[in-house]
Amino acid sequence: MALKRKRPQCSISCLDLEHHLAEIAQAGFADYVGTLSDSILRLKDSDIVILASPVETIIEHLNAIAPHLLENTVVTDVGSTKKEIMKHARSVLPSGVFFIGGHPVAGSEKSGVRAADSMLFKDRAWVLCPFSDTPPGALLTVMDLVGDLMAVPLTIEPDEHDRVFAMISHVPQILAIALVHAALQEDVEHSLLNVAVGRGFLDLTRIAASEFDIWKGVLDTNRGPIMAMLDKFESSLNVVKQKLHSGDLSELWAKVSARRRSMG
Amino acid sequence: MALKRKRPQCSISCLDLEHHLAEIAQAGFADYVGTLSDSILRLKDSDIVILASPVETIIEHLNAIAPHLLENTVVTDVGSTKKEIMKHARSVLPSGVFFIGGHPVAGSEKSGVRAADSMLFKDRAWVLCPFSDTPPGALLTVMDLVGDLMAVPLTIEPDEHDRVFAMISHVPQILAIALVHAALQEDVEHSLLNVAVGRGFLDLTRIAASEFDIWKGVLDTNRGPIMAMLDKFESSLNVVKQKLHSGDLSELWAKVSARRRSMG
Repeated sequence: MALKRKRPQCSISCLDLEHHLAEIAQAGFADYVGTLSDSILRLKDSDIVILASPVETIIEHLNAIAPHLLENTVVTDVGSTKKEIMKHARSVLPSGVFFIGGHPVAGSEKSGVRAADSMLFKDRAWVLCPFSDTPPGALLTVMDLVGDLMAVPLTIEPDEHDRVFAMISHVPQILAIALVHAALQEDVEHSLLNVAVGRGFLDLTRIAASEFDIWKGVLDTNRGPIMAMLDKFESSLNVVKQKLHSGDLSELWAKVSARRRSMG
Repeated sequence: MALKRKRPQCSISCLDLEHHLAEIAQAGFADYVGTLSDSILRLKDSDIVILASPVETIIEHLNAIAPHLLENTVVTDVGSTKKEIMKHARSVLPSGVFFIGGHPVAGSEKSGVRAADSMLFKDRAWVLCPFSDTPPGALLTVMDLVGDLMAVPLTIEPDEHDRVFAMISHVPQILAIALVHAALQEDVEHSLLNVAVGRGFLDLTRIAASEFDIWKGVLDTNRGPIMAMLDKFESSLNVVKQKLHSGDLSELWAKVSARRRSMG
């Protein structure tokens, strides 16, 4: 939707599951709407292919599209993990087809075409992971696309991407799920939880409303870094608990809260 | 500010620290602005005294005001913990003065008169903790006040209050601090954290921007329940980690996310 707004002359083909097609057609931003099996017809005319589905289906779709891609086609994705996807892209895509991993750092707990918003990416980071041998022209093609969506492209190694996002995205998600789980255990005794939840709890657990299907592939393809970062979180929690216990938390708190305020 | 809007005929005296007085007077909702030492003059004319400061100063102020209160005065507070405050109120207030613990479940990471908002309490819960021997009339006086602020009064035991709020407010606060602390450790290596933090991380850690001074008294007066609820959180985190490890998280996730969605 954001793309059509900026590049009205470009033809957008939107391939999705049968039962999503009516809704996508109605949203009006696609010039062609079809099922994945139509990719045989559409891909050979495509300059850029964007795989925009949950992580595990990105990996399936790489298999599905690989035979139909012509030389010099640029393929990118919007998956939330990068290492496994890029490993897979390297192994299945024909040489002469250029894959650049992508991850727009935007979105919400909502999904589907109904959540579409042409300003979704404005001023948000969009991480790009080229291979070391990706031609600069292919990278520029994707950077231009990202720029047209008003996002800010950032280039980074896929390993580093997955570690950083384990900390800033996947671990928070796990913590939110664990906190609502813990509150549910208390809930059996305290109906007060239903009415008295404050803004802090709601903010902190908003992402716990996300569907598991959106997260399954992320967790499957980034389990190692997530576990490692959960360990780091637990070390920090132990430091905080110890200081809480000894009444000595003010210095750490001041440093942390100042840092958080600087994030906006 | 919310009170003046609803009860324009009532005279509001606002007693605060010397250096806050100019700002409070400028905000225009108080009929009288003075320092705490003026309480000797103002309290004997007061029907309702509201102690609205961080928890540890509420306890100090109870000591300070106790000698000046006349019989039948109703005293309430807005502190985030209740058991210690109520124990203290019982021990220092003269008999015939009625204390009802209060806790409005609203607010933000901002504090001070600059954050004042006449709609702050609208449709939010306001927990009230009467003693078992509090006269119904005194409780009704505070319930009316809460109603005039457009909040929803809820009556609960102070012990239960402190346990529930440990889970839904104090533990989330500790987790947010620990998560930003953990991210800061990573930050040394990854400047990407500065630009790529997504909405999930920002939502989850928003409360980590709170000043320690606001929280010090909460942590000091509710350490036991907070530690107990942190243990429960860690049990839940371990359950989630185990299921993450064994690829068996979907059922727990579905249950938790459905519950979270129902909270709005």
